[in-house]
Amino acid sequence: MSFAPLKNDRFLRALKREPVDMTPVWMMRQAGRYLPEYRASRQKAGSFMDLCTNPDLACEVTLQPLARYPLDAAILFSDILTIPDAMGLGLYFETGEGPRFKKIVRTAADVDALPIPDVESDLGYVMKAVSTIRRELNGSVPLIGFSGSPWTLATYMVEGGSSKDFRHLKAMIYDQPEVAHRLLDKLAQTVITYLNGQIRHGAQAVQIFDTWGGSLSAEAYKQFSLRYMKQIVDGLIRDQGGRAVPVILFTKNGGLWLESMAATGCDALGLDWTINIGDARRRVGDKVALQGNMDPAVLYASPATIRAEVKRILKDFGDHPGHVFNLGHGITPEVDPEHARVFIEAVHEFSQR
Amino acid sequence: MSFAPLKNDRFLRALKREPVDMTPVWMMRQAGRYLPEYRASRQKAGSFMDLCTNPDLACEVTLQPLARYPLDAAILFSDILTIPDAMGLGLYFETGEGPRFKKIVRTAADVDALPIPDVESDLGYVMKAVSTIRRELNGSVPLIGFSGSPWTLATYMVEGGSSKDFRHLKAMIYDQPEVAHRLLDKLAQTVITYLNGQIRHGAQAVQIFDTWGGSLSAEAYKQFSLRYMKQIVDGLIRDQGGRAVPVILFTKNGGLWLESMAATGCDALGLDWTINIGDARRRVGDKVALQGNMDPAVLYASPATIRAEVKRILKDFGDHPGHVFNLGHGITPEVDPEHARVFIEAVHEFSQR
Repeated sequence: MSFAPLKNDRFLRALKREPVDMTPVWMMRQAGRYLPEYRASRQKAGSFMDLCTNPDLACEVTLQPLARYPLDAAILFSDILTIPDAMGLGLYFETGEGPRFKKIVRTAADVDALPIPDVESDLGYVMKAVSTIRRELNGSVPLIGFSGSPWTLATYMVEGGSSKDFRHLKAMIYDQPEVAHRLLDKLAQTVITYLNGQIRHGAQAVQIFDTWGGSLSAEAYKQFSLRYMKQIVDGLIRDQGGRAVPVILFTKNGGLWLESMAATGCDALGLDWTINIGDARRRVGDKVALQGNMDPAVLYASPATIRAEVKRILKDFGDHPGHVFNLGHGITPEVDPEHARVFIEAVHEFSQR
Repeated sequence: MSFAPLKNDRFLRALKREPVDMTPVWMMRQAGRYLPEYRASRQKAGSFMDLCTNPDLACEVTLQPLARYPLDAAILFSDILTIPDAMGLGLYFETGEGPRFKKIVRTAADVDALPIPDVESDLGYVMKAVSTIRRELNGSVPLIGFSGSPWTLATYMVEGGSSKDFRHLKAMIYDQPEVAHRLLDKLAQTVITYLNGQIRHGAQAVQIFDTWGGSLSAEAYKQFSLRYMKQIVDGLIRDQGGRAVPVILFTKNGGLWLESMAATGCDALGLDWTINIGDARRRVGDKVALQGNMDPAVLYASPATIRAEVKRILKDFGDHPGHVFNLGHGITPEVDPEHARVFIEAVHEFSQR
């Protein structure tokens, strides 16, 4: 595939710790419910999954925040549970209940019965969305692909949906670690082909969302989450069409484990807001770039407060290469879109070199 | 008041980092729904608040886990929201919804209108429960008193109940920090008189539960949670009847901030399970004792797994004074009581000096 040359490469340069004219910025869940135009597209689509599985609509909502704001990257609009759905578990959404699966994975037999999806057919709608978005971006900014981490995917597959304490999967890792490892290995293999598919179809960087790795003990995190993210990092295409494809690892509540995350060979770590970004930088040194990390709740505060908080984070990071500005987690539905604008513009304004 | 002499002082000695014959152990929420006898008392009482406000029933459920297991401490059975309730906010519980308040605190005027409760009258039922429990314990093990931290209490008061993102309180700390500080100062003053009341009525150690401090950025945590816990530590009775009254600070998800927590002058830090307890000990040195930190979800695993995990944590802590064994958070309702027994007995068995 051939695409238009990239006009704004600030984001990719920052991930490789190269100098930039100003700090690049994007927002996790930037194509989301806080935008009225997103809500309109969602209504047009029908269900949430109808929106995800329609490449043209997925492209439409991916581009919406870029039409509004001077963002430095687009991120594929999709759900993190496309992989378990493609494994035949039957993803559905119950109003106010979050995602659910018709089939639940609890035993060794359940794990062995899981097929490894063919990304070009079973997840073809994601591949199509990626190439459509990349084409429609027309080189304006890079496109980020993503996947859930094996641990995070496994929590939904074993619990059957969202969970507070992950009791079934945790009982599995402690009592039947070999079953859990078989499941996580299968997921890691699938994530590799899934992300490599996204890269081949046009994704210029990828992020692994480890939303629930922070629910583990330090020991269990290394064995059951980090290990499989390293397996993925080792298996990814790191160069496509002569340009590096950076990999970002994001473990929510992973602030205690940054050193071991940086040692996986990834290019950047996503940070939630509980860690001071200057402390994080001192801990990882020049090993990786850092992405983050304003508390998304700051967007509920006034424009003056948002600007002050952006300034503080830039100052804490300091005058070093390798910072991509972001929120510490996804933007929430109740945020005023004008506050998101203040945030994005403040990052550029206060970081001009 | 005069009480029977203390027979088992392992818990108090460990908190003061003195040598012990074996590692003391208790469980957060040890008087709780996983016990059938608790569920029977709860049914007898009527509502949850009826159970909390009846000193005899509160005493009954406090003693239940001690009748079953060789625990080294009792903890007052109460709710963390007794203080805002005594401030007139009207605490109630909606089935499946958690705690709610009839009145919500959002403005400077709301904060200024909050009365500082008189603990002997407005919270007399708690004082009575403490002295009743202490008498009924008859010196078998020490009694722990407790309170929510100012930040944690404020989240419920400002949001009106449980919350995912604490948007109103966070908007307040960022946009109207002086209003938030007035509220938190009022709460800190009240917590001091509340815990000192518990100490005068018989509590032999106290724990401050900062359940939601870990939702803050590092900077905001210091200003809006830790600062007020230090104010409390500074205001507490630290010696009663010739014996030290240790203070334990527990910030869930506070693993990044242990050094600053230890610098408050408290005696011990409660740890959740996300930090390796050996790493925590190396970071705080001999400044404080440590309490924790098994993942409560391990209690869903087999007895053999529970025992192995206890052994690992004891080994990671190492042969030093100053360890109180506990879960990293409250025991959950679905746990088999026999698994709790395995946990408690394993701590004693594997830590014999």
